[in-house]
Amino acid sequence: MPNEQIRQAALQHQMQLTKPPGALGRLEEIAVQLAALQHTLHPCVDQVQITIFAADHGVATENISAFPQSVTTEMIKNFAAGGAAINVLARTLGAQLEIINLGTLHSTDTLSNIKHYHLGAGTANFVHTAAMSEDQLAAALNTGRASVEQAQANNRQLLIAGEMGIGNTTSATALACLLLNAPPAQLAGAGSGLDSKGISHKINVIERALTLHRCHTHSPLEALRRVGGFEIAALTGAYIRGAQLGLPLLIDGFISTVAALTAERICLGSRNWFIYAHQSAESGHAHVLKALQATPLFDLAMRLGEGSGAAVAVNLLRMACRLHNEMATFSAAHVSTKTQ
Amino acid sequence: MPNEQIRQAALQHQMQLTKPPGALGRLEEIAVQLAALQHTLHPCVDQVQITIFAADHGVATENISAFPQSVTTEMIKNFAAGGAAINVLARTLGAQLEIINLGTLHSTDTLSNIKHYHLGAGTANFVHTAAMSEDQLAAALNTGRASVEQAQANNRQLLIAGEMGIGNTTSATALACLLLNAPPAQLAGAGSGLDSKGISHKINVIERALTLHRCHTHSPLEALRRVGGFEIAALTGAYIRGAQLGLPLLIDGFISTVAALTAERICLGSRNWFIYAHQSAESGHAHVLKALQATPLFDLAMRLGEGSGAAVAVNLLRMACRLHNEMATFSAAHVSTKTQ
Repeated sequence: MPNEQIRQAALQHQMQLTKPPGALGRLEEIAVQLAALQHTLHPCVDQVQITIFAADHGVATENISAFPQSVTTEMIKNFAAGGAAINVLARTLGAQLEIINLGTLHSTDTLSNIKHYHLGAGTANFVHTAAMSEDQLAAALNTGRASVEQAQANNRQLLIAGEMGIGNTTSATALACLLLNAPPAQLAGAGSGLDSKGISHKINVIERALTLHRCHTHSPLEALRRVGGFEIAALTGAYIRGAQLGLPLLIDGFISTVAALTAERICLGSRNWFIYAHQSAESGHAHVLKALQATPLFDLAMRLGEGSGAAVAVNLLRMACRLHNEMATFSAAHVSTKTQ
Repeated sequence: MPNEQIRQAALQHQMQLTKPPGALGRLEEIAVQLAALQHTLHPCVDQVQITIFAADHGVATENISAFPQSVTTEMIKNFAAGGAAINVLARTLGAQLEIINLGTLHSTDTLSNIKHYHLGAGTANFVHTAAMSEDQLAAALNTGRASVEQAQANNRQLLIAGEMGIGNTTSATALACLLLNAPPAQLAGAGSGLDSKGISHKINVIERALTLHRCHTHSPLEALRRVGGFEIAALTGAYIRGAQLGLPLLIDGFISTVAALTAERICLGSRNWFIYAHQSAESGHAHVLKALQATPLFDLAMRLGEGSGAAVAVNLLRMACRLHNEMATFSAAHVSTKTQ
C-alpha cells in the first residue's frame, strides 16, 4: 500500500519550501504521491522502464483501421531500427526500452532486439468468436507480469507499458463497452485516423461483437479474453503486477487506460499505483478516465499510443521530484512566510 | 518574420514521419512553429536562457500581498544561493540562469552573482502617483532589451523571461485592466495566496489607481509607466527585443503574459515569437491569454512566477524538436501509409 505517513510528511515538507503553499500546483501533488508510492521522502524517477507490447488483431479483417494490418509488423521493425516516436522519446529520457511481440500475422523473428512470444498469428476475429483461448489469455497476462518483475529486478523506479497493434482501439473500445456497460457509439473514436464513415462502420462491428459476447461475459477477465488483444492482456498483467510489487505505473492513452481499468476491475486497488499522463484525442478516453476517477496531467491532443504520451510526461515527474528534493525551505533560506 | 516556406516544409516533413498524421498533436505544431521561427528544418532548443527580473513595488504598502515586502529581497538571496524553484528547474534543464535586480527596498548589492541596476527603491505607490518616471521606464525597458541582446550573442535558442516582486500581480492586473479596458473584479486573483477578503481589498486598491490614471493613459507605454513595475517593464523590453531579433520567447504565467500583451500593443507582431507555456491558476490569466489568442500547452495549476511554468515546458519543446528531427519517415522505414 502507499505509505500514508510518508504522504503526510511529504505534504508538510512541500509547505516549508520557498514558494507560496500550493504554487507549484500539480507538481506538488505528483511529488507527494510518488513519495507515498516509493515509501521515501526523496522520490526519484530517474530510472524508467518503457515496455511496448505489440500484437495483431483478427478483427482487423473487418476494415476498422485507417492503416493496413501489415503496419503492426512494419512498426515492430521500425522500433527495432530506432525510428519510431517511442525510440526518440526513450533516448531523450535515457529510459530502458523493451519491445515485446506477443503474436503477429507476419514474423519478426529475425529481429534480435525484439522479444518474441508466439501466442498466435494475432487474436481471432472477435466478431465471430472469442479473441483468445484461456491459454492465450494466461500467457499474455503472464508476459506482462514477467516484464514488470524483470523491471523491478533491474531497479526501475517508474514503469511505462505501451502498445502497438493495428485494430487495437476497436478491441479496447469493445472491452471498455463491456466493463462500463456503455454503447459503442459513446466510446468509439477515430483511432489512427478514421473518417466519420469509418467510425460508423467501427461502431457497427463492435455492436455485432457485443451482441455475441455480452451475455457470456460475467467477469472482467472473461471480457478481456473475448474482445481484448494479446497486448491489452499483457498491459493488464503488467499493471496488476506493478501494483502488487508497489511500482509507480505511468499510464498512457486510451488503450493503456482501458487496460488499467481492466486491471483495477480484476484486482481492486491497483489504481493506487497509477499516474495518468495525458488526456488523448481518442474520444472514448475521457469516459474511461472518469471511470477511474483519473485527472491526467496534460492534454496535448496526442493519439499515437506506443506509450508516447506517458513518455512525454516523465520529465514533469522528474521535475516534480527534483523541486521537492532540492528547493530550500523558508527557514534555511531565511525567507519570511505568509502574513495572511 | 517567421519563415512561411520553412513552416510548410516542416509541416510536410511531419506528414512523412512514421505515425498517423497529427497523432503527436501539439508536439507537431510546436516543432513546425519552432522551425518557422528559427528558419531551419531542424529546430533545436537545447541552449536555453532564463532571465529573472526582480523589483519592489510601492503599491505593496497598501497590503495587497499575502507575503511581506521583504520577501522580494529574501527571494533574490535565495536565487543567489540556488534554493528557489527556478534554480532547480534551470539546473535540471542545463539552462543558463541570470538574476537581475532592477530596484528593491533593501539592498542585495553584496551578492556577486546577481546583476544590479538601481532604478529606485522599488516603484512609487501608483495609488497616489505614477509608478515610474520616464527615465525609470526607459531604463527598465532597456535592461530587458540588453539582456536579450546578450542572450543572442551567447547563441541561445530559446528565451524565458521571468519575474519576482512582492505586489506584482496587483501591478500586472492594473496594467491589464488599462490595456483591455476591463474592470479589476474580472482580472484580480489571489496572487501569492490572498483570501477572498484580501482579493476584495486588492480590487479596491486597483480601482482607486485606475480612477487616478485612466484618463491620462493614451498609450500602452504610458499605462506601463503609470501602473507597471520595473520588472514588468524589463519583461516588456525583453519580449519586444526578442521578437525584433527573431528569438523564440517562451511565456510564463499571468505577469509574463501581461508583459507580453504590453509588448504586442507597443510593437505589433511581437506575438509571432511567443510560445505560451501554461495556463496558470491566477484567475486573470485566461483573459489575458484570450486577448493574445493564445492556447498554452498545459495547465498544472501553477502560480509561482519566476519563469517556472515556462521552464517546466522546455522539455516539451525539446521533445517536439527531437521527434521532428529524429523519427524515421514512412519510406525510409518501409512502413505502409494510410489506406482511408
